[in-house]
Amino acid sequence: MKKKLSLVGAGPGDPELITLKGMKALQSAQVILYDALVHPDLLGYASPESLKIFVGKRKGFKAYTQEEIHELILHYATHYGHVVRLKGGDPFLFGRGYEELAFAQQHGMEVEIIPGISSAIAVPELQHIPVTLRGISESCWITTGTLADGQLSNDLQLAAHSSATIVILMGVHKLPEIVALYRHLKKEHMPVAIIQNGSLPDEKMVIGYMHDILEKASAAAIESPAIIIIGEVVKTHPLFSTENYHPENVLVAAHAH
Amino acid sequence: MKKKLSLVGAGPGDPELITLKGMKALQSAQVILYDALVHPDLLGYASPESLKIFVGKRKGFKAYTQEEIHELILHYATHYGHVVRLKGGDPFLFGRGYEELAFAQQHGMEVEIIPGISSAIAVPELQHIPVTLRGISESCWITTGTLADGQLSNDLQLAAHSSATIVILMGVHKLPEIVALYRHLKKEHMPVAIIQNGSLPDEKMVIGYMHDILEKASAAAIESPAIIIIGEVVKTHPLFSTENYHPENVLVAAHAH
Repeated sequence: MKKKLSLVGAGPGDPELITLKGMKALQSAQVILYDALVHPDLLGYASPESLKIFVGKRKGFKAYTQEEIHELILHYATHYGHVVRLKGGDPFLFGRGYEELAFAQQHGMEVEIIPGISSAIAVPELQHIPVTLRGISESCWITTGTLADGQLSNDLQLAAHSSATIVILMGVHKLPEIVALYRHLKKEHMPVAIIQNGSLPDEKMVIGYMHDILEKASAAAIESPAIIIIGEVVKTHPLFSTENYHPENVLVAAHAH
Repeated sequence: MKKKLSLVGAGPGDPELITLKGMKALQSAQVILYDALVHPDLLGYASPESLKIFVGKRKGFKAYTQEEIHELILHYATHYGHVVRLKGGDPFLFGRGYEELAFAQQHGMEVEIIPGISSAIAVPELQHIPVTLRGISESCWITTGTLADGQLSNDLQLAAHSSATIVILMGVHKLPEIVALYRHLKKEHMPVAIIQNGSLPDEKMVIGYMHDILEKASAAAIESPAIIIIGEVVKTHPLFSTENYHPENVLVAAHAH
């Protein structure tokens, strides 16, 4: 039997933001190994006979290690053929997809990569915040904010000196350190937005400045998964217009989409 | 008649890398205004009765200005209803989509945004180069390399000091200046890849170091549209392995996909 792995990006959350190619891979797969942030509707594209196996983190359960996921890929590809590894966002932007690709190739598997829409660009975009804008921001810097050892990344310091829009994925727990960095750089007036569950019906956003975002995020009970967007482009949001901006504005629950 | 604009990202080139939501917008549109880098197969999803209007640059013809495109959006939405603005990549990452959104809202149009797969992440990914990789690159910095006035961006200097993978869109004509910057920083040994027509059958890639990439790009006759990827992650490509790397290796024409 031909062992095949398709690494498929599921996109930011909305199940219609998967690609046509991703949907076709789901339709032809014998086995789907899917993560916690993958929308359940996507499994509906798969054949009813296919195995659908959750490999994400679940409350009260230990998550699979990366090595255990590799073993599952090999096991199911050996015994069933075509495995789709369905991952939130894009598999190669902080998705550890490359590690799965390298493992599968070492074990003689055919590998196909199907990119996904990354929340880094799409989630601000769906709130009408452009990560780049002529005359305002000429570049976009995407990071998780932290290194593998949990330290705040030095790159963030360099980025904070640039005119780049900074997008921080999976960094909400580091918000106090990020704010401290900007205060240290005397950039308390830098606009910032935090968006939780972007592209989904329960999306929630807080918008403010470095000097008030901690209180606002706390008042709105913002939690993971959420992304942080830092930069002058955040000011394009209507809540920043003179008549709308009030320090007590903590959130937009409604979709801009 | 309800005036509606859907800003739709067509993805990097391969027509199957559009989203399901983007395809549905094409199916329901009365008018499609499309750019030069949009794959012609995508127009096949549209109704045969819909108007399909090319608004990109064509050899020997003046391109439409942004203001002219705005007027076309308003004209067609007023007279036909639902207009899809189909743009290569993602509409909000150097896509000027925000300007079209703002214009349409000012003219009382309903606006819907449908993100697209950006070539910045997907094109290296399809060549099995991850823009981030644990222990190698903790962030990804995306730029065009140049400002609106044509100057090399200062942000590029900051980024060159970081561990970020740098992705430069639409920057092939600036390659000599980019190489000069890295030589100035004594980073001649920084790996770099240039990919033209990423995700398409005529895809072409050169891979090398800052000290030899100019000759290689020239030998391979690399032209726009192409993206430049700078960073240690480029070394993950099989052509960089000890047995494969030869200074005279100029290109991979085959897909890794």
